[in-house]
Amino acid sequence: VAHPHASLPVAVFDSGVGGLTVLHECLVSLPHEDFTYFGDTARFPYGERSPVALRAFALELGELLLARGAKLLVVACNSATAAALPSLRVALEGRVRVIGVIAPESLLAAGVTRSGEVGLLATPATVASGAYERALATSAPEARLHAVACPELAPLIQAGGEVDDRLVDCVEGYCAPLRAAGVDTVILGCTHYPLVRPLIQRAMGRGVAIVSSGQAIADEVARELRLAGIERKVDRRGSYRFLCSGDPQAFRRVGVRFLQMPLGDVRRVAVAAAPPARAAA
Amino acid sequence: VAHPHASLPVAVFDSGVGGLTVLHECLVSLPHEDFTYFGDTARFPYGERSPVALRAFALELGELLLARGAKLLVVACNSATAAALPSLRVALEGRVRVIGVIAPESLLAAGVTRSGEVGLLATPATVASGAYERALATSAPEARLHAVACPELAPLIQAGGEVDDRLVDCVEGYCAPLRAAGVDTVILGCTHYPLVRPLIQRAMGRGVAIVSSGQAIADEVARELRLAGIERKVDRRGSYRFLCSGDPQAFRRVGVRFLQMPLGDVRRVAVAAAPPARAAA
Repeated sequence: VAHPHASLPVAVFDSGVGGLTVLHECLVSLPHEDFTYFGDTARFPYGERSPVALRAFALELGELLLARGAKLLVVACNSATAAALPSLRVALEGRVRVIGVIAPESLLAAGVTRSGEVGLLATPATVASGAYERALATSAPEARLHAVACPELAPLIQAGGEVDDRLVDCVEGYCAPLRAAGVDTVILGCTHYPLVRPLIQRAMGRGVAIVSSGQAIADEVARELRLAGIERKVDRRGSYRFLCSGDPQAFRRVGVRFLQMPLGDVRRVAVAAAPPARAAA
Repeated sequence: VAHPHASLPVAVFDSGVGGLTVLHECLVSLPHEDFTYFGDTARFPYGERSPVALRAFALELGELLLARGAKLLVVACNSATAAALPSLRVALEGRVRVIGVIAPESLLAAGVTRSGEVGLLATPATVASGAYERALATSAPEARLHAVACPELAPLIQAGGEVDDRLVDCVEGYCAPLRAAGVDTVILGCTHYPLVRPLIQRAMGRGVAIVSSGQAIADEVARELRLAGIERKVDRRGSYRFLCSGDPQAFRRVGVRFLQMPLGDVRRVAVAAAPPARAAA
């Protein structure tokens, strides 16, 4: 008989639409699974939040998603992973397994770099956490990490405006120190950034590998479901449910465009109030 | 001293915005070169045009772009390449070199497939030409090509509407015979198709390689410029000019979004009148 949890969805959360890049890779690998996606757009951006605030948000969203039914939880946000993954795992121990986005990506980058000069584009919170330095020290002890904090990039992407000179200048400005350092690999340390991968590839030029975590996470989700014996049968088509804490229409508009997926109805779910992100930084 | 042609732009043309996927790869490799892009949107789509019509269009656009100054001509449209590349090369012999999109892509696919079962998604005109069968017979004689004509796909992409169930169903319908055939590689035989690569990858699933021609074309552009000694110096930033034969605002709106590049002013250039595409098919 099937495990009683097998019919539950996999739950994925992010501060906004960025985690949809992770969801996309999950759908390529696991079209027969159901997914619930939560974008915490009311408290976006996470990238300038304190570790204390991020841990509180992650715990709240973990409980919220578990209450709605989830057989696996994916933290598809690098800032939240950096600040809250260990405490979230402890809090949900025995109830649900939790997957984060930093370790698999560092492993990928370690396998790709030949010069050992690795660039990182990430939010201020993720850079400040030192999580990528630690992960890379494990997977590639010889490599040198060149980290650039990009406070403006996720907000510009999340806003979903037309690509203009401001966004191009922003991307080129963040990439300039990585070009100067001669990195051969750039880690996209925020799940929003794959949404502007063409811009980043043009700014870095040919021959620089761009690493994002989507497929590695999808592989880990598949492995966890298999190990726990809670996979769905492959002869079905999964269904998807989208939730957010802010304006559902704004989420839907940007999400559909970037992910090339009809999102259907996006439902608003209330979360605890929080001061504006920059004030909390 | 520099070759007198070196300061001219590279000219790229397509029936619409699809060739911008080729231009993107050129900009990754050659950010120091100038480019002129022409989208023949007034006569879009090319995919149901006759070979005679496509040869006339290609010759007209070749002359038009040469008259505006071009040191190399890229036919970034598979339908036009299939029908017109040899005659265009003969007509422009000694005046400008011409690069097309089919041969490099077939070579890529031949290198990627392990099972030898290769899928092709392309326009009716490209499929009818047999150009991919011939190219693949040269580069991978053991491989079997499974070709699917996709009359609706390029027009839906060019229209630039929101991704909805109709577009998803369209992509899934075209991919279904390739899934049934168990291909391990899919050639995107139209430069529009990379613009919906996420949709195609989800429809085909994990483990199926998606091959497009952009980077191979960019490599060939770089090689041709080098061989002819007409490269620009690398210490400059190239400029880009966008032309189209139809509505410039419609071209700009879709182009900016898919290519993540501000196009600046898009100028309209008149071309010879042609009957609606389907009537000419």
